[in-house]
Amino acid sequence: MNRQQLINQIRFKKTFLCVGLDTDINKIPQHLLNQPDPVLAFNKQIIDATHDLCIAYKINTAFYECHGVQGWQTMINTLNYIPKNIFTIADAKRGDIGNTASMYAQAFFDAQASGMSFDAVTVAPYMGADSVKPFLAFADKWTILLALTSNESAKNFQLINNQDGFLYQQVIAQASQWATPEQLMYVVGATRGTALADIRKQIPHHFLLVPGVGEQGGSLADVCTYGLNADCGLIVNSSRGIIYAGADENFAQAARNEAMKIQQQMEGELGKIFDF
Amino acid sequence: MNRQQLINQIRFKKTFLCVGLDTDINKIPQHLLNQPDPVLAFNKQIIDATHDLCIAYKINTAFYECHGVQGWQTMINTLNYIPKNIFTIADAKRGDIGNTASMYAQAFFDAQASGMSFDAVTVAPYMGADSVKPFLAFADKWTILLALTSNESAKNFQLINNQDGFLYQQVIAQASQWATPEQLMYVVGATRGTALADIRKQIPHHFLLVPGVGEQGGSLADVCTYGLNADCGLIVNSSRGIIYAGADENFAQAARNEAMKIQQQMEGELGKIFDF
Repeated sequence: MNRQQLINQIRFKKTFLCVGLDTDINKIPQHLLNQPDPVLAFNKQIIDATHDLCIAYKINTAFYECHGVQGWQTMINTLNYIPKNIFTIADAKRGDIGNTASMYAQAFFDAQASGMSFDAVTVAPYMGADSVKPFLAFADKWTILLALTSNESAKNFQLINNQDGFLYQQVIAQASQWATPEQLMYVVGATRGTALADIRKQIPHHFLLVPGVGEQGGSLADVCTYGLNADCGLIVNSSRGIIYAGADENFAQAARNEAMKIQQQMEGELGKIFDF
Repeated sequence: MNRQQLINQIRFKKTFLCVGLDTDINKIPQHLLNQPDPVLAFNKQIIDATHDLCIAYKINTAFYECHGVQGWQTMINTLNYIPKNIFTIADAKRGDIGNTASMYAQAFFDAQASGMSFDAVTVAPYMGADSVKPFLAFADKWTILLALTSNESAKNFQLINNQDGFLYQQVIAQASQWATPEQLMYVVGATRGTALADIRKQIPHHFLLVPGVGEQGGSLADVCTYGLNADCGLIVNSSRGIIYAGADENFAQAARNEAMKIQQQMEGELGKIFDF
């Protein structure tokens, strides 16, 4: 999916919500555990209940890898169940030297090789340009680079600074030389407040993937105040707050209700920049 | 495998070689392609031919993930074929927030959950302490944190500096507060010359996993000069230089010959610190 298609989706559906499928078999409703693949059954119902309220799904690869081969199959089946007009993100945070990065890009972008073709993959910057560029070699695919993450210990290294600014600002400055806003996004945590405003000044045009709204304590209103640009420029993720909103047989409806609350708030925010 | 068992292996086998199973189906001998699982068939012969010459195998997860479910199965089968007294490393370079990092740790350490129980996993430091500590929660398992990598663009961020030193030195300084040398190692590229000497001064006791000897241009003699400590303290990896030494039906013997050259050089180096 290219940038214009993504923006069109956002305008049409009046939402920039991403639903995070961080599906933990220990947290899904009991009645699903007798299904052949409980996690897949859960994901399908969540997707059915939310796909008109969001523009993206984010699959957190760790929650699938921890189940080995079966988990990998569940991830593929989940991806392939998502409607084709919805943006899909492999939240894999990979990062390795060139020839290895190419293999990771194949794993997430090349369905012929791996059975999966996501629109985007999250990538870690620590190893530098040659660990990121192989992902950028795929046409019409997106790389979402970690910049300033939502977790407490992001400060350990991302907020190290010198005369060129914080490490995360230097990551953004360098990486923005490697690709255009048509191919590259950044992860910026919703818990970062005014740092988001600084980042928006540094990169006015890029889309930002923003986790940390909801369970992690970030405010959607603040994220919009500091982060919206003329094209929206935000994909805001919520995982646990939506998918675990209910714990019984009505969990999908409960998830829909939570997603709708966020969508309605987003519609209000989008009304400030788009002429619906 | 704990530290003393690892050191005992090194003394007993007179080697600190790690063979990297970065197995690319496009580079293995043609005659294997009619096997049910060509990559597994290749890996088994490499393991049979080298296991007395090395103390570790490193599985680069990207080369397996790019084949989807089948690749994940090949990785599990490869791991389970490695003799139990040899140190096993999942070169996965994972890194994510706490609850996600716990899932990655399960994927590589908890055979009941995932079918795999490696001795060690490589982890990226960008997201800080809470992305690393869940790996450290597993008893008798090792976390191998990226410090100064062997690739050209490592300089983009790892060599950013301020009054507290280079970023990689700050990673080592902070992470060394999180765990002892009984549980934590660092990745330091063989191409880094005297930086390895500086790192050895900073952390005299930790084991270092050193890739980059061979194809990437690092010198084993230099690595030993700068990096050996009284317990050896080095695991030196070679992947392509060994596993692709031959391209025909004698590939396993060719791999053995290359591994033996390195083992003999290592035996000479170990003779300087151990009384065999």
